[in-house]
Amino acid sequence: MGDLLEKIKSPADVRRLSAAQLKALAEEIRQFILASVSKTGGHLASNLGVVELTLALHKVFDFKKDKLLWDVGHQCYTHKIITGRKEKFEFLRQVEGISGFPNPAESEYDQFVVGHAGTSVATAIGMALGQHQQKKTDRIVAIVGDASIVNGVSFEALNNLGLVKRQLLIVLNDNSMAIDATQGALAKTFSKIRLSQTYERLRKMADNIVEHVPVIGKSAEEAIERLKKTIRMAVPTSQLFESLNIPYFGPVDGHDINSLTQLFEALAHLNHPAILHVYTKKGKGFSPAGSRPSKFHSTGPFQMNGDAVESASAPPRTSFTNAFGKHLAALAHKDKSIVAITSAMCDGTGLMEFRKEFADRFYDVGIAESAAVDIAAGLCRTGLRPVVCIYSTFLQRSFDQILQEVALQDLPVVFCIDRAGVVGSDGPTHHGLMDIGFLRMMPNMVLTAPANDIEMRLALEFALSHSKPVVIRYPKDLVPPPEYVRAACSRPFELGKSVVVKKAKGSAIAIVSYGSLLTEALKAAALLADEGIGVDVINARFSAPVDKKIVTLLGKGKGIITVEDHYLACGFGSAVLEMAALQANKGRRRDKETGRTEARKDSHNTIRPLGAPRTFIRHDSRYAQLMEAGVNADKIAQTAKEMLGAAPQPQETLKACTGCQT
Amino acid sequence: MGDLLEKIKSPADVRRLSAAQLKALAEEIRQFILASVSKTGGHLASNLGVVELTLALHKVFDFKKDKLLWDVGHQCYTHKIITGRKEKFEFLRQVEGISGFPNPAESEYDQFVVGHAGTSVATAIGMALGQHQQKKTDRIVAIVGDASIVNGVSFEALNNLGLVKRQLLIVLNDNSMAIDATQGALAKTFSKIRLSQTYERLRKMADNIVEHVPVIGKSAEEAIERLKKTIRMAVPTSQLFESLNIPYFGPVDGHDINSLTQLFEALAHLNHPAILHVYTKKGKGFSPAGSRPSKFHSTGPFQMNGDAVESASAPPRTSFTNAFGKHLAALAHKDKSIVAITSAMCDGTGLMEFRKEFADRFYDVGIAESAAVDIAAGLCRTGLRPVVCIYSTFLQRSFDQILQEVALQDLPVVFCIDRAGVVGSDGPTHHGLMDIGFLRMMPNMVLTAPANDIEMRLALEFALSHSKPVVIRYPKDLVPPPEYVRAACSRPFELGKSVVVKKAKGSAIAIVSYGSLLTEALKAAALLADEGIGVDVINARFSAPVDKKIVTLLGKGKGIITVEDHYLACGFGSAVLEMAALQANKGRRRDKETGRTEARKDSHNTIRPLGAPRTFIRHDSRYAQLMEAGVNADKIAQTAKEMLGAAPQPQETLKACTGCQT
Repeated sequence: MGDLLEKIKSPADVRRLSAAQLKALAEEIRQFILASVSKTGGHLASNLGVVELTLALHKVFDFKKDKLLWDVGHQCYTHKIITGRKEKFEFLRQVEGISGFPNPAESEYDQFVVGHAGTSVATAIGMALGQHQQKKTDRIVAIVGDASIVNGVSFEALNNLGLVKRQLLIVLNDNSMAIDATQGALAKTFSKIRLSQTYERLRKMADNIVEHVPVIGKSAEEAIERLKKTIRMAVPTSQLFESLNIPYFGPVDGHDINSLTQLFEALAHLNHPAILHVYTKKGKGFSPAGSRPSKFHSTGPFQMNGDAVESASAPPRTSFTNAFGKHLAALAHKDKSIVAITSAMCDGTGLMEFRKEFADRFYDVGIAESAAVDIAAGLCRTGLRPVVCIYSTFLQRSFDQILQEVALQDLPVVFCIDRAGVVGSDGPTHHGLMDIGFLRMMPNMVLTAPANDIEMRLALEFALSHSKPVVIRYPKDLVPPPEYVRAACSRPFELGKSVVVKKAKGSAIAIVSYGSLLTEALKAAALLADEGIGVDVINARFSAPVDKKIVTLLGKGKGIITVEDHYLACGFGSAVLEMAALQANKGRRRDKETGRTEARKDSHNTIRPLGAPRTFIRHDSRYAQLMEAGVNADKIAQTAKEMLGAAPQPQETLKACTGCQT
Repeated sequence: MGDLLEKIKSPADVRRLSAAQLKALAEEIRQFILASVSKTGGHLASNLGVVELTLALHKVFDFKKDKLLWDVGHQCYTHKIITGRKEKFEFLRQVEGISGFPNPAESEYDQFVVGHAGTSVATAIGMALGQHQQKKTDRIVAIVGDASIVNGVSFEALNNLGLVKRQLLIVLNDNSMAIDATQGALAKTFSKIRLSQTYERLRKMADNIVEHVPVIGKSAEEAIERLKKTIRMAVPTSQLFESLNIPYFGPVDGHDINSLTQLFEALAHLNHPAILHVYTKKGKGFSPAGSRPSKFHSTGPFQMNGDAVESASAPPRTSFTNAFGKHLAALAHKDKSIVAITSAMCDGTGLMEFRKEFADRFYDVGIAESAAVDIAAGLCRTGLRPVVCIYSTFLQRSFDQILQEVALQDLPVVFCIDRAGVVGSDGPTHHGLMDIGFLRMMPNMVLTAPANDIEMRLALEFALSHSKPVVIRYPKDLVPPPEYVRAACSRPFELGKSVVVKKAKGSAIAIVSYGSLLTEALKAAALLADEGIGVDVINARFSAPVDKKIVTLLGKGKGIITVEDHYLACGFGSAVLEMAALQANKGRRRDKETGRTEARKDSHNTIRPLGAPRTFIRHDSRYAQLMEAGVNADKIAQTAKEMLGAAPQPQETLKACTGCQT
């Protein structure tokens, strides 16, 4: 750690530094982030890009009182480093340490736990209105990237910025790329302006702005009018914001800490909302991050011997993501009607190969999950077979579109939901624990989940030949080792049909698992077998419709344990309970003497659903999170023993995510 | 019906008419719509506004081959009238007749069943891409209103319009108001332009456009460049679209059918996307509709003696909506921290009184449900008590924001969800059958539902004094008659506590209802009492958390019937099943001889959940829809008798919505 950085205990220490010292501090922080993330993994490129910007903001504003809102939030490392969390970077995104996103439970300098794009302008508007109501004058700053500003929520907020009749500064951090290169017309506009700017022009722009921004006593409107006449701002961008009636300044160099500081000092005096357009360079100071943005957007640990950056250890098996990408590309060779759509997640969803081979059948719409689904619906309406690839957590943005434009029309769009279940180090904002619930309510939707690489292909083949919308969910995880794949069944997927993977003679319990947790179910069966307890293992394959045969097991006197990587509420187990309740009622018998009815033997009194409790599971390893959610092999085996009466009652051992209980 | 209209059997008949005849036809259609809607109710003002626009489109395009996509869709009456559905207007929005929205099951001239705002541009892009892939040249037209274009989905789509390298015409139908007056900066911009235009200027604009739009063989880009130089288009609007790189034409007069026809003929030749900005007058030709837009947006039947328009019959009781509005205003007098937010549903959610009394504590963000919730989260962060008022079906647009910006932060935002449950004549696009499911998965959220007017106040009082986010849901219905209110309980709401409304000695069954269906539960109890069967009636009040006492009834040997106005999947009954499954497992006993365990008597083997099946329930009266969903008094009583073994097995009588199975 550098000399200056060592002395920074809080933003107050930053405010005491001279311009030259700030510049030196920025370099020390950049090295600190690089060294730190190379060991722990984390978001790299975006954080290297905003070091100077963050320092300049903290130099001018006092965010103990003023409010700083990060959009997406993964670029907050410098902010965390100087707000007393420097030492905790050793355990970044690990359970002992801090989260990779802002979190008010960690620090009074954070306002919201965030992780999704496009929310900062709207929440900032809300805070500005709230402060106005309460006659408070704390200043509010939102930092939003060029990739997030095109999201629908951002636009809805920008269109409502006029509600705010007081200070509110939006910093548009334009680094020219989202996870992948930013898509869309606005991105092209940004890029045109960017190419036309020299460093000298940017600096001059900053000077001009500072010169013309009003000091106290002057009319802000008047000053802005003069400013407009004096300098030619980036025309197309300013057009957009001016058509929305938002005062726009810039673009300026986001690495010129001195100019930035002066700018913020000037803009802090405005008594109305304004946008400052800032250019930054993603991965600044570390060339591999700049040249391979997808790789260094969110990275695991890496070696730092010069530029030769290699992953510290190669994974033993392929991931569900890669398996999906490979199978989809293979199927697309045979079926020309297949097209793929994603929203700024081409790499993350495994579509790189598809994009390379079928460039004209691939669409990336930028961070626009809602529009992605509607575009897919339109494509499907013309007879194509669109495959929508969006992480579970971001697909929540498309809920209404899936219902109305897909399910209601009964269009056979295929949804491939990556990052379903717990996601490890990204934590609560990124878990995909609700997709079964929100999708299984919708009429027409078919929900399925592959347990391994082979089933991924089978599920895709099923989905792409089915006449209704189909959802395929899978986790951010490696596919199971070969022995577990061999143990599974490789029959083609049939609508609503489960498969029996393991049968034990005289077994009293069936473990019915949904998706990739089949491996944990098989491990649990092995653990139980070691203790002389035989159980059946069933791979449900479908959560909508649920296989009725699962419920008939109850009639054979078996207890059922459902296993899924999802909230227990509304999940697969819940669907089994609903079916059992309906089936049991169909089979009631009347006791002729009492006039009362008795449940049939196959009633649902021996179903034990396992799934995540209704809590936010904090950042940790995926394995630890599965244990916390109560759905790993140990928990399954323990549950089986409880059901057999051979073990003590379970204690409530689930830790709530303290980070989220603000 | 007029002479011309009588002869129109299909759009081909429209294409044969002269300009003068089209003008006369427009007048006949306007009178037809007015007469028809005065009898059946329906969307009036918006339909009177687009008569000429619709006719001009059908005159130029052949929508048997070309594709016409309506945004929101409630303005499609003229389109329906001339596409063979004229006679069915007698039963508009009734089960015997046609739906009030586009529906491909009704006609090959419709593309999507729609009802929500902002989807047409995105689905049109998808169809354009699909046609391009398949080398089809059918032309595509999307009609989107000025209130819908500000929705986030619209913007995401506009930003991606560049994906389309072929014809795609977007008609911006600018009638200056959504359900309420359109909110936001763009609306202000639109309105500024609108005020500056005279009829003569608009006509000249149309002439200029036609003159400069390329005919086949000319370069489109060249022509647009020349056009820009020749005429000064509406600057700020064109700025917005130009910053998104979208060729923009207009504004032009949307009631000048001759100019419109010429324009469409010219624009149909473009080989790239373009926007035509058209002015129309909502409620044109019927002055009450123009002057009272909220009243005549969606109206019931009305009398037509000149301008004196009165509702045909006054409702016997107040609605849940009005009850909410009244109580909220009363509470806001006492608690200055209460602020209200809606997204273009001020009237529909009963906020008129609140807005009148507390103008500075009321925010309408336009059709921007996602931003509304984020703004509320920001307001709440500053210590205020925001109340978010959005219909259940539209709140689906805010799913991700409720999770991340509210539940994850544990902010005590109050959500007042109107139109929860089946909604009657609007049909499948407007039902609110999923809110319990998508909200009860989220940690921290408290879900409650009042059964009547008094409980509405109690629920609001509870919500506004609780420290966590609280959801209050209620239907588009009248509050129950006094006798059912008296029968209920008026104890204050306590977190997770149900109330026993009726106890019958020796009863074998408890009907546990959630929300307004308590009235149906009480009616069912009365029906059963008439047959000598006593049942308990419990008002659950909360679906998250569910009262554990409900499950303990099972231990007393009682069967439980859960009743809710929601999909059975993931609903209140599902939550009761989940709790019973967990509770039952906690109370297992081991049989010492066999080593097996037995469920306790209070296991969940006698729960019969009643809720809507996984299907789209078509437009009909709310009462009929409740019967179809299986949750009215008759169905509850029948279920009780089945459980008691006194009645035959139920038959599957649910009709699927044929309108939606395309």
